[in-house]
Amino acid sequence: MPSLGDATGGRILFGGDYNPEQWPREVWDEDVRLMREAGVNLATVGVFSWALLEPRPGERDFGWLTEVLDLLHANGIGVGLATPTASPPPWMGHRWPETLPRNPDGTIRTYGSRNAYCPSSPVYRAFADAICADLASVYAHHPALRMWHIGNEFGTVCHCDRCAVRFRRWLQARYGDLDRLNEAWGTAFWSQRYGDWDEVIPPRQVQYVINPTQDLDYQRFASDLLLEGFTTERDIVRGANPAIPITTNSMTFFKATDLWRWGAEEDFTALDSYPDPNSPRAARDGAMAQDLIRSVGGGKPWLMMEQTPGRAGFRHVATPKRPGLNRLWSLQAVARGADGILHFQWRASQQGAERTHGAMLPHAGPDSRIFREVCDLGKELGDLTGVLGAKVAAEVAIVLDWDSWRAVELDHQPHSGFRYVDRIREYYTPLWKTNVTVDFVHPEADLSRYKLVVAPNLYQVCDAAADNVIGYVERGGNLVVGPFSGVADPDERIRLGGYPAPFRDLLGLRIEEYWPLPDDEPLTLRSELFGDFSARSWAEWLATGAGTALAEIATGPLTGIPAIVRNAYGAGTAWYVATLPEERVMARLLALACDQAGVESVLPGLPEGVEAVRRGEYVFVLDHGRGTVEVRSTVAATL
Amino acid sequence: MPSLGDATGGRILFGGDYNPEQWPREVWDEDVRLMREAGVNLATVGVFSWALLEPRPGERDFGWLTEVLDLLHANGIGVGLATPTASPPPWMGHRWPETLPRNPDGTIRTYGSRNAYCPSSPVYRAFADAICADLASVYAHHPALRMWHIGNEFGTVCHCDRCAVRFRRWLQARYGDLDRLNEAWGTAFWSQRYGDWDEVIPPRQVQYVINPTQDLDYQRFASDLLLEGFTTERDIVRGANPAIPITTNSMTFFKATDLWRWGAEEDFTALDSYPDPNSPRAARDGAMAQDLIRSVGGGKPWLMMEQTPGRAGFRHVATPKRPGLNRLWSLQAVARGADGILHFQWRASQQGAERTHGAMLPHAGPDSRIFREVCDLGKELGDLTGVLGAKVAAEVAIVLDWDSWRAVELDHQPHSGFRYVDRIREYYTPLWKTNVTVDFVHPEADLSRYKLVVAPNLYQVCDAAADNVIGYVERGGNLVVGPFSGVADPDERIRLGGYPAPFRDLLGLRIEEYWPLPDDEPLTLRSELFGDFSARSWAEWLATGAGTALAEIATGPLTGIPAIVRNAYGAGTAWYVATLPEERVMARLLALACDQAGVESVLPGLPEGVEAVRRGEYVFVLDHGRGTVEVRSTVAATL
Amino acid sequence: MPSLGDATGGRILFGGDYNPEQWPREVWDEDVRLMREAGVNLATVGVFSWALLEPRPGERDFGWLTEVLDLLHANGIGVGLATPTASPPPWMGHRWPETLPRNPDGTIRTYGSRNAYCPSSPVYRAFADAICADLASVYAHHPALRMWHIGNEFGTVCHCDRCAVRFRRWLQARYGDLDRLNEAWGTAFWSQRYGDWDEVIPPRQVQYVINPTQDLDYQRFASDLLLEGFTTERDIVRGANPAIPITTNSMTFFKATDLWRWGAEEDFTALDSYPDPNSPRAARDGAMAQDLIRSVGGGKPWLMMEQTPGRAGFRHVATPKRPGLNRLWSLQAVARGADGILHFQWRASQQGAERTHGAMLPHAGPDSRIFREVCDLGKELGDLTGVLGAKVAAEVAIVLDWDSWRAVELDHQPHSGFRYVDRIREYYTPLWKTNVTVDFVHPEADLSRYKLVVAPNLYQVCDAAADNVIGYVERGGNLVVGPFSGVADPDERIRLGGYPAPFRDLLGLRIEEYWPLPDDEPLTLRSELFGDFSARSWAEWLATGAGTALAEIATGPLTGIPAIVRNAYGAGTAWYVATLPEERVMARLLALACDQAGVESVLPGLPEGVEAVRRGEYVFVLDHGRGTVEVRSTVAATL
Repeated sequence: MPSLGDATGGRILFGGDYNPEQWPREVWDEDVRLMREAGVNLATVGVFSWALLEPRPGERDFGWLTEVLDLLHANGIGVGLATPTASPPPWMGHRWPETLPRNPDGTIRTYGSRNAYCPSSPVYRAFADAICADLASVYAHHPALRMWHIGNEFGTVCHCDRCAVRFRRWLQARYGDLDRLNEAWGTAFWSQRYGDWDEVIPPRQVQYVINPTQDLDYQRFASDLLLEGFTTERDIVRGANPAIPITTNSMTFFKATDLWRWGAEEDFTALDSYPDPNSPRAARDGAMAQDLIRSVGGGKPWLMMEQTPGRAGFRHVATPKRPGLNRLWSLQAVARGADGILHFQWRASQQGAERTHGAMLPHAGPDSRIFREVCDLGKELGDLTGVLGAKVAAEVAIVLDWDSWRAVELDHQPHSGFRYVDRIREYYTPLWKTNVTVDFVHPEADLSRYKLVVAPNLYQVCDAAADNVIGYVERGGNLVVGPFSGVADPDERIRLGGYPAPFRDLLGLRIEEYWPLPDDEPLTLRSELFGDFSARSWAEWLATGAGTALAEIATGPLTGIPAIVRNAYGAGTAWYVATLPEERVMARLLALACDQAGVESVLPGLPEGVEAVRRGEYVFVLDHGRGTVEVRSTVAATL
Repeated sequence: MPSLGDATGGRILFGGDYNPEQWPREVWDEDVRLMREAGVNLATVGVFSWALLEPRPGERDFGWLTEVLDLLHANGIGVGLATPTASPPPWMGHRWPETLPRNPDGTIRTYGSRNAYCPSSPVYRAFADAICADLASVYAHHPALRMWHIGNEFGTVCHCDRCAVRFRRWLQARYGDLDRLNEAWGTAFWSQRYGDWDEVIPPRQVQYVINPTQDLDYQRFASDLLLEGFTTERDIVRGANPAIPITTNSMTFFKATDLWRWGAEEDFTALDSYPDPNSPRAARDGAMAQDLIRSVGGGKPWLMMEQTPGRAGFRHVATPKRPGLNRLWSLQAVARGADGILHFQWRASQQGAERTHGAMLPHAGPDSRIFREVCDLGKELGDLTGVLGAKVAAEVAIVLDWDSWRAVELDHQPHSGFRYVDRIREYYTPLWKTNVTVDFVHPEADLSRYKLVVAPNLYQVCDAAADNVIGYVERGGNLVVGPFSGVADPDERIRLGGYPAPFRDLLGLRIEEYWPLPDDEPLTLRSELFGDFSARSWAEWLATGAGTALAEIATGPLTGIPAIVRNAYGAGTAWYVATLPEERVMARLLALACDQAGVESVLPGLPEGVEAVRRGEYVFVLDHGRGTVEVRSTVAATL
Repeated sequence: MPSLGDATGGRILFGGDYNPEQWPREVWDEDVRLMREAGVNLATVGVFSWALLEPRPGERDFGWLTEVLDLLHANGIGVGLATPTASPPPWMGHRWPETLPRNPDGTIRTYGSRNAYCPSSPVYRAFADAICADLASVYAHHPALRMWHIGNEFGTVCHCDRCAVRFRRWLQARYGDLDRLNEAWGTAFWSQRYGDWDEVIPPRQVQYVINPTQDLDYQRFASDLLLEGFTTERDIVRGANPAIPITTNSMTFFKATDLWRWGAEEDFTALDSYPDPNSPRAARDGAMAQDLIRSVGGGKPWLMMEQTPGRAGFRHVATPKRPGLNRLWSLQAVARGADGILHFQWRASQQGAERTHGAMLPHAGPDSRIFREVCDLGKELGDLTGVLGAKVAAEVAIVLDWDSWRAVELDHQPHSGFRYVDRIREYYTPLWKTNVTVDFVHPEADLSRYKLVVAPNLYQVCDAAADNVIGYVERGGNLVVGPFSGVADPDERIRLGGYPAPFRDLLGLRIEEYWPLPDDEPLTLRSELFGDFSARSWAEWLATGAGTALAEIATGPLTGIPAIVRNAYGAGTAWYVATLPEERVMARLLALACDQAGVESVLPGLPEGVEAVRRGEYVFVLDHGRGTVEVRSTVAATL
């Protein structure tokens, strides 16, 4: 199986999306000249070119694309060639309106934007497959071709009748017969029992709350249906030249696509990364997305497919990156495993919905601070070949699971403001701030190589995952579990007898009731270990068994109830956190857990805002503050 | 006509919704064992069982239900048997899509939740009637049967073409001919005159503001259409055994169903009560809902049909009831006239949309503080037979009227934030806090038995109601009228010549203009009686005639204008409040009115948060605070 | 071409909408009696009368209307007769559902409100034309007729398939062939290239962002389509009697209708004006709307068609005008060029959606402070004949352009909270506060007669407009340009090479990037001229060329970058403001620009809140404060 290494050719990839079809031919020559000036070695081409490549159904106009590829190749620039299937031409929606996606209320999303297709449409699929096959047959051996880029930011969900048919097929594969589906969905409640497969439909507009397992299964199905689109196109282009690596660009913390399943099908993973430069937590957000894209790609080098050198056009307040920030975040990506730094896009569009999005070559042209920074970055990356292919070392794993994410955010959970990714962030942040590098892991992954495993919100857990986590601790592992974990099985069936049913012994406690709190009514807690502290939004009616209470609630009807518990289990230790403590306590708790587990910081004692990551033989030290920091160290590459 | 007394059998009813169809057969035996342990004597069965009772159109599977009823009966537990018509099976929406309800924009609400039916659908009606008839024929004489529970929380509104046909029929009955409808709706405005009955449609999605009387009439019609569903099913089951009392569970302060009309058709009324335990006003809210359900039931004993022992699953932040709270609120209900305390539900669902809703037997099982509290409550209620059938005494009546409610909240009223139920609460609260028990009354009810009548917002008033209120005062009654009263007739036609046209003489004043105010610009008032005080959101350009100004506005363009007026009229006294004064002034004003009317507190001088209600020979004293209160008294049952 | 002068007959028009069809015949006699008492000389009749004039398709019932006109005429009251086409009767939507407008999601807006028509419907058009023709043939020479009032507040936008056909025709007229459309819309982006005209549709519900030029063109088209409705009806009624002037009532700052194009087609312009009396900026808002309606009418006298004597029914908090306020605002309108003061409406409706809207004759009847004020105003205006026909003098022009407005507010602009009219207001306000009267001008208008031109946000600019503005300065003009100007061409194609491409020389600067800022993170600036000051929400990465920096940014990544620049260009001077400075600085900057340009205040040194406007030989001095102001002056009419 090919990998990103097959695309890099010994140099960190550098470049961006290139859409020459938006410009007259004479501009192309300036483009390649300036690309060379900037050190660009990879251009992503053809992402949104379907309407030009197939101007009328079945027609082909590949001439301009060939010219682009030849021109790039002649200038030493490689190509990531896209299958253009993310956005069908207007003729498709016009002539085959059944290819247009439907909302849950039955209304249609039409063309005029992008992604106007129903992923289950056979007409769409047939046209998509044909253009992929033709592109593959023409370009699979083009000397410029370094990688295939399938579609773009997969994410379209449709609720039409054809999707209903596909959904049923997916459910039949999952459940076998209808009785099992009725059982899994709990249709005995609210008179929802299905007597015939044909009655089963997607979750659509309803009077009140939708069946939660129906909702959850549709989210799973929709992800799988999109993934089938990916693998279908992947197999077509792979058939033409198995040596070319294949990827697609992911939005990481995006609920609609379960990246554990996607990463397994890609030759390498690729990230679209747009932290908000106005957020004081942007560097943390970037690191977290990068750790996730690396993790779903199995720890292999990955590609920063999209970031903006300036402004992210879709933001309500689209402040550009300040000088130096794109370099800083690019090096952060390299530090966390990227072997390529691409941008959306090369030349700023003059027209269209993304005309306000930043670019390597902005509207102002090459005489601009952004283009100068791009050139500097290209040069710097060109000198940084030593990290290529190297892995990022992590002793800590955070369990992240799309099923739990989706289930925690179903309707009528105890606290509607409880967001899964917030929970992940609350545990990631103290580790990131102390420069403890983490991987993300699937709940059924092999945990044995980690000194510490953190499960911030392992809400839904199958038996195998529960055994996996328990066995890890039993054999000496260290585990931190966050609130509202171990609650349901994969059918969203509550596990009974006291929460968290599968982990009661492991954690040495039993919970009778979850106790969500209004966000503006903080909880006061008392602890010898942490001192008095506050927490918010969530508590649990908990009683310890074998576990030791490390903090307890000090006010209100839950006074005296433990909120942080530690339990020795087998050869290991498990911690449970039954609330959302203030950040200081989270930091202290994770520091204690790290100490006990023997986890070390990459560079202990760095000032706040200075990030350190070890990749292979390098330690990257990145100053996200705006002051000047002196770091005495022997490592090679610093800012 | 049977009553709740026919169901109680000399014991306060205690229990909850029981949905055994969600559980394997072996669980049922545990259920009845634990029910007996808890003192349960009534189980509501079959509310959402249609899809199991009729697995395919016309088929019947009653075997499991018979087994359930037999099992309960064998264990001495009575049954409230539901007609399962609140939620048709998926096959209905699938095979007869015209049974699905439509939104005002024409889109459909489908199955996958509950209540997926159009109340005017003949297909729905036919299937519903058939299953009701069959259930009645099988179970009407089952020894476990104590009551019928028709449907569930009626409230579905549809805007389809069939509903349009039914709406026209309703309008023809109300108005006779089209000219009268045109006149009633004021269709001369905005070119809305109807030339043919077929043109008349429900209020649907429009360009701007909908015709207010069309909107209002549709609300009336929709309530009546649902009520027709109730009475149809009632008559079917009553036909099989006239001795069994019949009810349905109501959401009380729910605008869609006019409970004065519903209460008149039920053998007794039943309440679903879910005050928010996080609200400092929850006890007040509960009391108010209980007083309303008693009042619409004609003052007879009523049934607490649903409350949660723990968490209300539908809340955004679903904090459970703290220990003791379910007992406290249950006794509050008994104090205010309940002869039964049921819960939703017996055993917490493991699946489905309400898996997070509290239950008598929670996910944690019988070893839980909630189940222990349930057992205690069952025992306590078992000892409290003395109140059964007794009435609650009230000397004060609050006028509450669905027409005014709906009309006050139509589009383009002077203040879009003006909520009818807020007005009711503002007058109810000081009375509740001083333990003055109130009934709610319809504006045309006999008022003579009340010492004081309060009409917080009698916005829409027909001639008969106006005469009723005026005559009450004329003959010596005491009346307090709140702002924005006496404005319109039942066609939502403004009564002219100065507001409030029918009450100008009664109140001794005349209003030229309503004067809504921004909520953040409070009004300052001056009064010898009340001292200086503030009010908010509403004022009126008012001039007194015979009435005496008790407070006047002190700032702004309305300076000097009276805001509280008292007028001697006939043998009685009427007060008018033309603004929304701060709570202290509302309390003082109502205390003065009570004094003048000779109304007494049940127990004067109780500390704040301690509620006292007299029911029959008992005085219930309920401490809603969290401290310990000593009440010296001779009454029998206290907390 | 007739003008408003042909309608006034030597007296300022005074009156309002008169809807006698809502009342019994006997009320009409009272109406005319009270109108005479109030000095009413014009009544707007028939705006929403279609359903009565044409009770069934093709039938006519004009008798009542003739009686109304005769009665008014007999009492010396003129009539503005409306074509009733704003609101078709229910029979139209019922029998021809294709006449109903569609939302972007495909759902329908039906009748029951007003404006339930699709402007491209041939059925609607045919019925509308026929009723217009018949009204014209009957009433064009009626002695009461003073003016035609076409439709009402044009603004309905539809997205149906028929509108799509009309849109294509409009696009064909604009672009000629499809290649040019593809180029103009930038369809090379996101695979949007159209291969056939039939594929081109209105912007409807889509997955993500709509094509911006498609969106913009549809806004242009929708305005033009409505305007075609206006001109069609205008030509019909004009044909019957060319001497009668024709207008329609406009909502001025209303994005859907480009008043520059509308004003050119009307004999005189007419304003509906509803400033919020609760707003401290209401007087400024009124003045600004009045200046705009005068400007789009070419500076000629215009008509206040609608204002409320009391409450504006559509407001969320509809506080009435305080005593004196309707007089004050009426005189403000006269000062700014109105030759008539009408109201919506004469007699307050008793029913229908606008029953809560104020009226000259309120629900309280003639014994009311509002009716007394109306009578006083009628008398006062009757004495004020000297201004009739006189023009308002303005030395300053503010450039206002619907294309820029719509383009600035397209999706994905750099700051989604950036509102075009806010920008206009920020430049208008300091001028208004210092009593510098302004005209609004189209960007291609002759600017030579103005001493100072202000272009607050000339975002989109065609070559001719750019040349116009540049030439103005070159020949000695004084120009102030606000931020985010000179960005795009009329296809919404960004002008390249550094913003603002066409104005770089003129302004002596070059901008590389726009730098929107979070609204809660103000910018600090430093300036010798203005002192230190703050600005918000917007900055620009700017470098001066020939221009002189007058203020520069003092903190953050843009420290040292100029934010206010002045440049001598040709014989004139241009100022550029690259941010949104606090009001003090805006005031100072505009005062400096006025000084330099020789612009003078109408009456310098007036206290704050006192407005002065010169119209012909009169200077109106209007005290918007609530105190008493003494103004020593020789002018004739003051408050």
